[in-house]
Amino acid sequence: MTYCVGIEVGDGLVLASDTRTSASFDDVRSHRKMHTFQIEGERVFVVMSAGNLATTQLTISRLQHDMDANDGRPSLRTFSHLYQAAEYIGEVLAASQSRVSADAANAGVSVQSTLILGGQIAGERPGLYMIYPLGNAIAASPETPYLQIGEVKYGKPILDRMLTNRMSLGDAARCALVSLDSTIRSNLSVGAPIDLAIIGAGDLRVSHQQRLYDDTPLLARVRDEWGQRLANAVRDLPRFDWEPARPAGDTSLPPVPPPMHSMNPWGATGQSQQ
Amino acid sequence: MTYCVGIEVGDGLVLASDTRTSASFDDVRSHRKMHTFQIEGERVFVVMSAGNLATTQLTISRLQHDMDANDGRPSLRTFSHLYQAAEYIGEVLAASQSRVSADAANAGVSVQSTLILGGQIAGERPGLYMIYPLGNAIAASPETPYLQIGEVKYGKPILDRMLTNRMSLGDAARCALVSLDSTIRSNLSVGAPIDLAIIGAGDLRVSHQQRLYDDTPLLARVRDEWGQRLANAVRDLPRFDWEPARPAGDTSLPPVPPPMHSMNPWGATGQSQQ
Repeated sequence: MTYCVGIEVGDGLVLASDTRTSASFDDVRSHRKMHTFQIEGERVFVVMSAGNLATTQLTISRLQHDMDANDGRPSLRTFSHLYQAAEYIGEVLAASQSRVSADAANAGVSVQSTLILGGQIAGERPGLYMIYPLGNAIAASPETPYLQIGEVKYGKPILDRMLTNRMSLGDAARCALVSLDSTIRSNLSVGAPIDLAIIGAGDLRVSHQQRLYDDTPLLARVRDEWGQRLANAVRDLPRFDWEPARPAGDTSLPPVPPPMHSMNPWGATGQSQQ
Repeated sequence: MTYCVGIEVGDGLVLASDTRTSASFDDVRSHRKMHTFQIEGERVFVVMSAGNLATTQLTISRLQHDMDANDGRPSLRTFSHLYQAAEYIGEVLAASQSRVSADAANAGVSVQSTLILGGQIAGERPGLYMIYPLGNAIAASPETPYLQIGEVKYGKPILDRMLTNRMSLGDAARCALVSLDSTIRSNLSVGAPIDLAIIGAGDLRVSHQQRLYDDTPLLARVRDEWGQRLANAVRDLPRFDWEPARPAGDTSLPPVPPPMHSMNPWGATGQSQQ
């Protein structure tokens, strides 16, 4: 599994992805799911991927090959609008899948991938797209300033409650980290390190890029402080009329529990296996 | 869809469920999903359900019928251990499904339901079970003091971060409300009113029961205050080294957005429909 989230605010874009891939429980590895293409000062594209790793790698390789060829044919080098880049990436994605899809269907394997594209071309505002396996795409909007792919549910509540397109890039990046961390806690198949990229509006390059490991101080602090602040928030919510008054001086809940990884890959009616 | 959560702490049990049922987007209704059976001072059982409504109603009716018959045959009146009650409810559930399952498979309809049982029989500690459609069951444990059924993912992160079995019933009930509210925000097919029941250890009855509507002051306050506290928590997390210092006196994020209901019933590779 995978979790990637892109956020579009007035000041630019925040993109964040995990790095864990798994073919099964006993075949877990790390692969980068965030790929950057840029011509500094002119155009920048960040592509994040969820789904079949072979499809993704083929797609990324083809995007890079077309760009390097620089032979006048369509590539990330040539478009003057971001939606054209999204359309082109969608075509490359669909072609990368169809190359193997007949055999895949027979083998019971899904070769589909879904992508998030964030970027900016000079003369336009930054933009954020989700590119479906079929190759078509939707854009983020002021009402829904984020897009997610992969294991999207655990990390969605914090985004739904918090995000507005008037947020600073820093606050949006903190929301993205909390969203990633919540997903990592609740699904074993999503894991650190986390790749984080910021594209400031008008910078026309990746303004800041950072890889956060479990023991990177910033990520460790975010985890600790978030847990403590949630504990305080629960404690401070309104009390029920059947509750005794909280004893004076009782300002703390029990210690926050360690991550409890539990995953149910067998679906809604699946049963826990030991 | 549905969302129900049960929490077991040292002081007893917290049970919470939504009330929305939907056969399709244009057929949305409210049905109680929390059912109580008790002989005060001797035994108390609360059953919550997710899945096929006809199966659930048949199961509940049979449980009630067996208990009312009081003819010495096995019923919620007769067992001296809670796990026996779970086993019996599982048998009734499986039988309720099998009555129609042959026709259902032909019609492409799932008649499965999953239940949560919380309760206590005199002489034992309170207990919490999840009863699968097959009729077998698992219990909550000190390491994982909660069980969920239905749309479980959106409301899980807060439980994973907060719950310990040393929590007070009030704090556990606040966690349950936040977990329900997060799910209601992120999935249109889960909706208020929320049914909340507390079984204090040793009370041998439902100690407190409450129905919370969208405009019930307690629920409205929990929503407002939780949103505000999360906003403050995001703002107060560590800053990135690329961020400018926060202007003095800037103590607030932009206003928290209104609920943004979005739902993707078409699955991971489904596409948004207008």
